[in-house]
Amino acid sequence: MSPEERLERAGLRLPEVNEPVANYVMAVRDGTALIVSGHGAFDQGRAVHTGRLGESLSTEAGRQAAEAVMLNLLATVRAQLGSLSEVTRVLKVVVFVNSTPDFAEQHLVANGATDLLVRVLGDEAGRPARSAVGVSSLPLGFAVEIEALFRTT
Amino acid sequence: MSPEERLERAGLRLPEVNEPVANYVMAVRDGTALIVSGHGAFDQGRAVHTGRLGESLSTEAGRQAAEAVMLNLLATVRAQLGSLSEVTRVLKVVVFVNSTPDFAEQHLVANGATDLLVRVLGDEAGRPARSAVGVSSLPLGFAVEIEALFRTT
Amino acid sequence: MSPEERLERAGLRLPEVNEPVANYVMAVRDGTALIVSGHGAFDQGRAVHTGRLGESLSTEAGRQAAEAVMLNLLATVRAQLGSLSEVTRVLKVVVFVNSTPDFAEQHLVANGATDLLVRVLGDEAGRPARSAVGVSSLPLGFAVEIEALFRTT
Repeated sequence: MSPEERLERAGLRLPEVNEPVANYVMAVRDGTALIVSGHGAFDQGRAVHTGRLGESLSTEAGRQAAEAVMLNLLATVRAQLGSLSEVTRVLKVVVFVNSTPDFAEQHLVANGATDLLVRVLGDEAGRPARSAVGVSSLPLGFAVEIEALFRTT
Repeated sequence: MSPEERLERAGLRLPEVNEPVANYVMAVRDGTALIVSGHGAFDQGRAVHTGRLGESLSTEAGRQAAEAVMLNLLATVRAQLGSLSEVTRVLKVVVFVNSTPDFAEQHLVANGATDLLVRVLGDEAGRPARSAVGVSSLPLGFAVEIEALFRTT
Repeated sequence: MSPEERLERAGLRLPEVNEPVANYVMAVRDGTALIVSGHGAFDQGRAVHTGRLGESLSTEAGRQAAEAVMLNLLATVRAQLGSLSEVTRVLKVVVFVNSTPDFAEQHLVANGATDLLVRVLGDEAGRPARSAVGVSSLPLGFAVEIEALFRTT
């Protein structure tokens, strides 16, 4: 079953590709590596899943935000590679979580992103090295920003 | 026109190279990759562009801080490579912005860094993957810290 | 003298290997690169060295936390490679320091990690590119989280 078929079975759809609004690109190919910019969650060009963990958002809402961000990020990956089947391994994911000083469950928020990777890309290819940290704020008020590194065919 | 000539035409000058004050180095060569440490802005050995976005600094002041940090970072790159012409592509830039919880324009601050890269290295080589996040504080009170990854000849 | 012998002479012992509690792995081999996840400090499965710099923890306590995290991280590296002698160079270390807005000595905290690397792996192999930033909070309330990139034989 292809990653695209797994997405469909899970009832998930990749959103439109985000466009960078400045002098950078959403991803850079470097040999067989794909280096992906920090992504937030957009829906039809509008920032969604905004807010702060420990304040306006529950851990579960944060987990959903991380999943939405990863869907945006995978849309970029598919646009770059033509198909998600070209991914041989997700090497690394960094999850920045918009957090109050009191919030200490960034790892549970980050699961929303890495659980999705495993569902879509499988147990081997979809399980990356990961960092999850709490940050004081994010562009456009996003709850979660994620950057990633992929190995491709 | 070489990157050094572009800098001169823009009326910009690379500062002195920062020296690490501990057990690390400002950049590591790894094959044709150049992995660059987190940089702040120094002027003649003194920390400059300190302060916090959303508090003591405007977005425009932050943008200028990001440009100053990138000049420091390019000074390191030139010292490592001999010439900025050895850069074939800026692969990745991470911009850490010293931010209050209310500040949500880290992407505009980061433009100060990536706009400079495009001016100096050109549209192709100078446009990287990028992440921009708000952090609670930075070493020496810097407003902006930037790390980067370059591909070289 | 092997890295393991240096650890012993310094009176240091690698802790048990941390287990990821979700869909990620503590490290990914990618050719001769070893990409290591963000680590905190655990002792016998319990989170230790928790707290915030500028609040409950002194800079010296933060330095010790960074050393403890790096010991945890090196335990992962040894488990992956069989021996620390397989490391040819630490390429990059990112040190996330749980900080109040007033704390500006993240670089001194980070020295706890990179000083240990040099003691264990030597002056050449153990001196990486480094970033150190202050974050608003970390998983489980850790004072320090560190991720790293190694080149191996």
